[in-house]
This record gives sequence, C-alpha cells and structure tokens, in this order.
Amino acid sequence: MSQRQSSVPAVGIVGAGQLARMTYQAAISLGVRVPVLATSADESAALVAREVQIGSPMSGEDLRAFAARCDVVTFDHELVAAEHLAALEASGHHIRPAADTVRIVQNKRLQRERLAASGFPVPAFRPVATVEQLLAFAEANGWPVVAKACRGGYDGRGVWVLDSPRAAEQLVQRATEVGIELLAEAFVRIERELAMLVARRPAGEAVVYPLVETLQVGGICHELLAPARVDPRLAREAAELVRAIAEAVGVVGILAVELFETDGHLIVNELAARPHNSGHYSIEGCITSQFENHVRAVLDWPLGDSSLVSPYVATVNVLGGKDGGDPLARLPRALAVPGARVHLYAKQARPGRKLGHVTALGRDADEALARARCAARRLAGEEGDEADE
Amino acid sequence: MSQRQSSVPAVGIVGAGQLARMTYQAAISLGVRVPVLATSADESAALVAREVQIGSPMSGEDLRAFAARCDVVTFDHELVAAEHLAALEASGHHIRPAADTVRIVQNKRLQRERLAASGFPVPAFRPVATVEQLLAFAEANGWPVVAKACRGGYDGRGVWVLDSPRAAEQLVQRATEVGIELLAEAFVRIERELAMLVARRPAGEAVVYPLVETLQVGGICHELLAPARVDPRLAREAAELVRAIAEAVGVVGILAVELFETDGHLIVNELAARPHNSGHYSIEGCITSQFENHVRAVLDWPLGDSSLVSPYVATVNVLGGKDGGDPLARLPRALAVPGARVHLYAKQARPGRKLGHVTALGRDADEALARARCAARRLAGEEGDEADE
Repeated sequence: MSQRQSSVPAVGIVGAGQLARMTYQAAISLGVRVPVLATSADESAALVAREVQIGSPMSGEDLRAFAARCDVVTFDHELVAAEHLAALEASGHHIRPAADTVRIVQNKRLQRERLAASGFPVPAFRPVATVEQLLAFAEANGWPVVAKACRGGYDGRGVWVLDSPRAAEQLVQRATEVGIELLAEAFVRIERELAMLVARRPAGEAVVYPLVETLQVGGICHELLAPARVDPRLAREAAELVRAIAEAVGVVGILAVELFETDGHLIVNELAARPHNSGHYSIEGCITSQFENHVRAVLDWPLGDSSLVSPYVATVNVLGGKDGGDPLARLPRALAVPGARVHLYAKQARPGRKLGHVTALGRDADEALARARCAARRLAGEEGDEADE
Repeated sequence: MSQRQSSVPAVGIVGAGQLARMTYQAAISLGVRVPVLATSADESAALVAREVQIGSPMSGEDLRAFAARCDVVTFDHELVAAEHLAALEASGHHIRPAADTVRIVQNKRLQRERLAASGFPVPAFRPVATVEQLLAFAEANGWPVVAKACRGGYDGRGVWVLDSPRAAEQLVQRATEVGIELLAEAFVRIERELAMLVARRPAGEAVVYPLVETLQVGGICHELLAPARVDPRLAREAAELVRAIAEAVGVVGILAVELFETDGHLIVNELAARPHNSGHYSIEGCITSQFENHVRAVLDWPLGDSSLVSPYVATVNVLGGKDGGDPLARLPRALAVPGARVHLYAKQARPGRKLGHVTALGRDADEALARARCAARRLAGEEGDEADE
C-alpha cells in the first residue's frame, strides 16, 4: 500500500485517453483524487486532470512511481505489461482489475481459453503459428475464417476475414515477419451485435447495465442504442451470461462484453476490463454512469443504479472526417440540435479517429437516434438533411 | 481580446468554489479550456482544474493577468470589484456577465432599484443610513422590518428581521461601526420560497428552467424540489417574469431568481448572475445542466434543452455537522442509498458549511425527497431511520 498521508482516496488511471478523461469527469462528484499516467501532456485526460504523471505504461519504474501516489491503480486501456502489475500487487498495491484479469483480457487467445474452459458460448477457435495450422482450421470449420492478432488490436485493427488459402498464406507470412501471434476463429453469421456492461466489486457484488445494440462501421462501434430491440428473453440471458463472465474472470471495475446474436442465441465476441465505448450512453442515459461505477467498484464502494432514465438512449461516435477538420470548430452548430449531448475528447483531428460522441434521449428509438445522428453529422462536417433545428 | 494562439476557447472562472468546480466538470464534455482564478490551491475547483492561477478577485492586476489567458471571463461569486471588470471590458476583454450586470447584482440596493424601475414585483424598500430613517420606514410599512447588508451577504448572512425600535437601533449602530450599508425592506409573509434559473446569450436568446421549490433552513437553501408543486399559472408567470428580468439586467450566462409566493402572487427576492445552489438539481434532473448552459451562454453558443428527465427531482444540501466530520469518510454509506447521486465539494469540513449535495430522481415528490434526504443524512453523520437500503 502507498505511504500517502491524505485521507482523500486517490484512484490512479494508467492511460490518459478519453476513457480516463470521462472517468476523471465523473470522479469529481465523489470528491476523490484521480491522478493519471499519461505518455504526453496533450493526451485527452492529461488536458483536464489536476495530477498528471508523464510516463510509460510499459515501464515498471514509471508504474511503481505512479502506484506510490495512488490508493488504487486502474486502467483506461489494456496495453500494460501484466508482469509489472503482478509485481506491484506483490508489493501490496491495489491493482484493479487485478494483474491476472488484465493478463487474460489483453490477450484474445487467453480470453477465448478462459471463456471456453468455463463453458461460455464462444466460436470455435485455435491459436495458429503456421499456414498449415490455419488451413487445417479452415478445413474443419469452413471458409471464411476470422484471424485475429492475439494482442494489441482494437477498433477493428488486428482482425482479418480470410476467404481463401491464398489470403491465409499472405497473412501468416506477414504476421510471422512482424511477430504477431494469431488466433483463428470460426466465422459467425451475425444477426445483431450487442454489448453489455457489468460493474463488479472485489467481493463480487455486481450491477449489470441494459443490453445495447451496437452498429459497427469499419470495425468501430459507430452507433449504439439502449435498450437493444431484442426478445426480453435474450436480454435476460445476456445479463446472466455477463454476470457469470465477470465472476469467472474476477474483474473489479467495469467489464464490457461484446456479444453476437446468431440464430437467436448469444456468442461472446470480446471482453474489455475497463469503461468502454459501448457504455458512453450511460452518462446521460443511466442513473449511474459506467465511469462513476468504475470508480466506485475499484474503491470497493457500493455500486449505483444502472437503470435507464429514458425509454431509449442513442449514442453516435464522432470520427475525424476526411478533411481533417476539428469538430470543436463545428460545435455550435451541433449544440443547436435539440436534446443532443455532445462530448468532445480534445484529441488532434485525424480522418477516422474517434474524436467525440453524441448522446440523445428519446421517447422511442428513432427519436433518440435521429437527434444523436444529426448532431454527430454536424460535428463531422457532413452537412446533410437538417430537419430538426 | 486576448492574444492567445490556440483555437480552443478558454472560459476563465473568477472564483474556485463548488460552482466553479461543477462548471469545470460540465465543460470537460465541450472540449473547452477552463482556467480558474483561485485565492488558494486547496479551493474546491483548484483541486480539480488543470489551469489554476492563484490571485485575488479584488486585484486589478490579478484580474488583468487572468483575463489575458482567457477568451471569456465569468464568475462563481459576486465579490469582484466591478470597476476592474469595467476596465477589462474597456480594453476589449469579454466579461460575461458584463461589469454593469455584476455591479447591480452584487448590491442589493441596486438590484431593488433596477427591478422596481422596470416594474417588477418587489417589496417596499429603502436604503437607510440612520436609525431615524429605519424607524420611519417601519412606521410606514409596519413591524417586523427586514434589514439587509447591501453587499457581501449570502446564505442568510447579512439579513436581519427586526421586530422593535430597540433591535433597529442596535443594528444601525453596529452597521455604522463596521461600515455596512443597509437596506430596509417590508416583511413579506411567505407562503412558499421558489427559485427559477434562466440562461441567456449575449443577443438575448434565453432558456428558462423549471420552477423549483426551495426549503430554507437557517437562511441556507437546504432542500429543493423540481418542479415546484404550484398552480401551473404561477409557474407560467414565473417563467415570464424571470425571462423579463434577465433581459432587464442584460445578464449573459445563468441568472438565478429567488422568488416568494405570497397571497398567490410572486415577489422577487434576490438575483444571482451565475450558476446557483438552486440549480444543482439540473445536473441529473435536466437534459442540460445549469453549468453546461452557463458555459454555452458565455461563449455565445446555442443553449441546451432545460427539460426535466424525470417527473420529480430533489436536491438536499450536505452541511457540515456539529462533530466537524468529513462527509467523504461517510460516502460509502451514502452511496448505498438506491438512486442517490452524491456530489462532494472537497472542502474542509466545518459545522454548517456547505460541503456537498445529493440529488435523486423520483416518480413522485416524496420518492425523490426521501432518497436524497436519506443519503444527505448519512453524509452529515445523522444516523436515523434507514429504510431504503
């Protein structure tokens, strides 16, 4: 444990992207301190936080110095060396989620193995090191085959859909060259992409959020609707599944579970053990946001109500447009959209980069989606049908 | 105007109390910079803001240095020398609300004179410098008489209800000794205390918030319920009144208008040209909070929807208990109250000091009030009937 004197708990966040920024924002209400470990002073959360340490999440020395000023250490991304976290735990620091959870979640192969071992529904999978192994997997499971980098991929990066032995051969060759460990998975015919969050305390108390529908565009979660328009039975199944997965991986804090609906049942896609893009709707849409519940959970404090405050809530991501323009310059026009709640991350604009999101409540799904889309289009500089000013 | 290069607008707040803290929190979503001018580094907003300048709001030099780093300067209290603000305006800085609005609002006599001149309903009043003037006022308007310090009073400080010539004599003597300018007002038999916020842009666009009921205890707004349980006619009258007052005083940003209901009609009590305690419910209770709309208004950006997201919203202030205990130490117990949204200001605990507030939504007034009260009692260390854990 740290040797700090103050009675104000410090929840340190490793990483200073938009997830840390929004966690910081939420934590202000609770009166706790939230130092962030940023790689540079112009990162999203470093621009707003009072206490910023510049350092690398891969450096044991930087992590030790950071942990020394915190009561609890948590994360806004998975790109942390789990062995350093284990060393911090061994010297008495509270790492939440724990080093072992981070180790599993940051590696897609370990995720799959853990989920399969616990009997959770996952597609057929196999780690592949050679073309022969990949072709054998394809033969057994049929084409196309999904190949994934076990580590480091996100937002669709590190995922390839292979439709031929030739494509498989090229990928394995490239992966071998750059040292990427590959996982092969059976292709799932997806009816709908869904996601669900759960917040969990160290002793196991957990709060499940509503099931949400996600619309991926180019592998990035682009639009999101809560609650998902599915059979209530499926939503109940998802809640049980997600609760059980949180228990199985022993998560502390938010766990985001991406799900596929296929043939009326659920398959687990991926896990993230931190606040997640699919939970941004919870800031305005739920009594307690994912960010506040993450802070509460890692401090082992009672969790807040995750109920929706509105029949429907929609969130639309704001991606950098082709012109590279800054959404901040277009903010006033977006704010003119009735009911649109804009969040900008203060990141350098680049085409395709996540720069912000818009959330809107609605009496029905269409109303919520229309409002959020309208404001998001304006932020992205896509002038179009502008109905509802 | 400032000579800053960055394209990110900076909204500087003079003052670093809880209002600045919550404004800072809200502004994070908009991606703007919010420097604060604090008198010390341990003030509520200085503990969370990235850019803090230590200085005095009464010093022309400190204000000039602060304004130089901001695109717009705004306030979290009225204790600012208006002549310095006028000088800043003269050299091209955007001061919002303007120096002239601040000058009027920070002085109860000027408030009354401006409101009366515009025909708004106010009690009979008269500035009094001598006992004779005060007694003459009492003779004309009857006992008791309300005496107020024209400047500097807040939360019930600087307000005296005088019920006899002897009490009047003592007060005038004390006021003369310490140099307090006094205002005498006719005593109003209050049926209900109400408040309403309006956000206004420089060109006049304004958004009115729901009428709220406030319950004062010891002169401090202790509990608040939105919407107020009054005749809808009265709520409509209040909205027209408040909109007209905002126009008359030319406010930019949030204007809070405290009202009395007496004999079925409204009388204006006091104005504050900044986010206000009576608007804290809007963080969770409205589509757009008073804090975000304050930032939007002073930047001359479109204002957000002020509608309620729930049938009822209640806010209960957390005051320092007699034991001087820190509510942060009691926070976990308060968070266990279902639906309670806690805001702590990270201020040093002292008996009677405002240290935080709790907001709760409810299907009816009783539900919202019960939740907020339960959590607020726990934070104040008043263990009592604990029904709803």
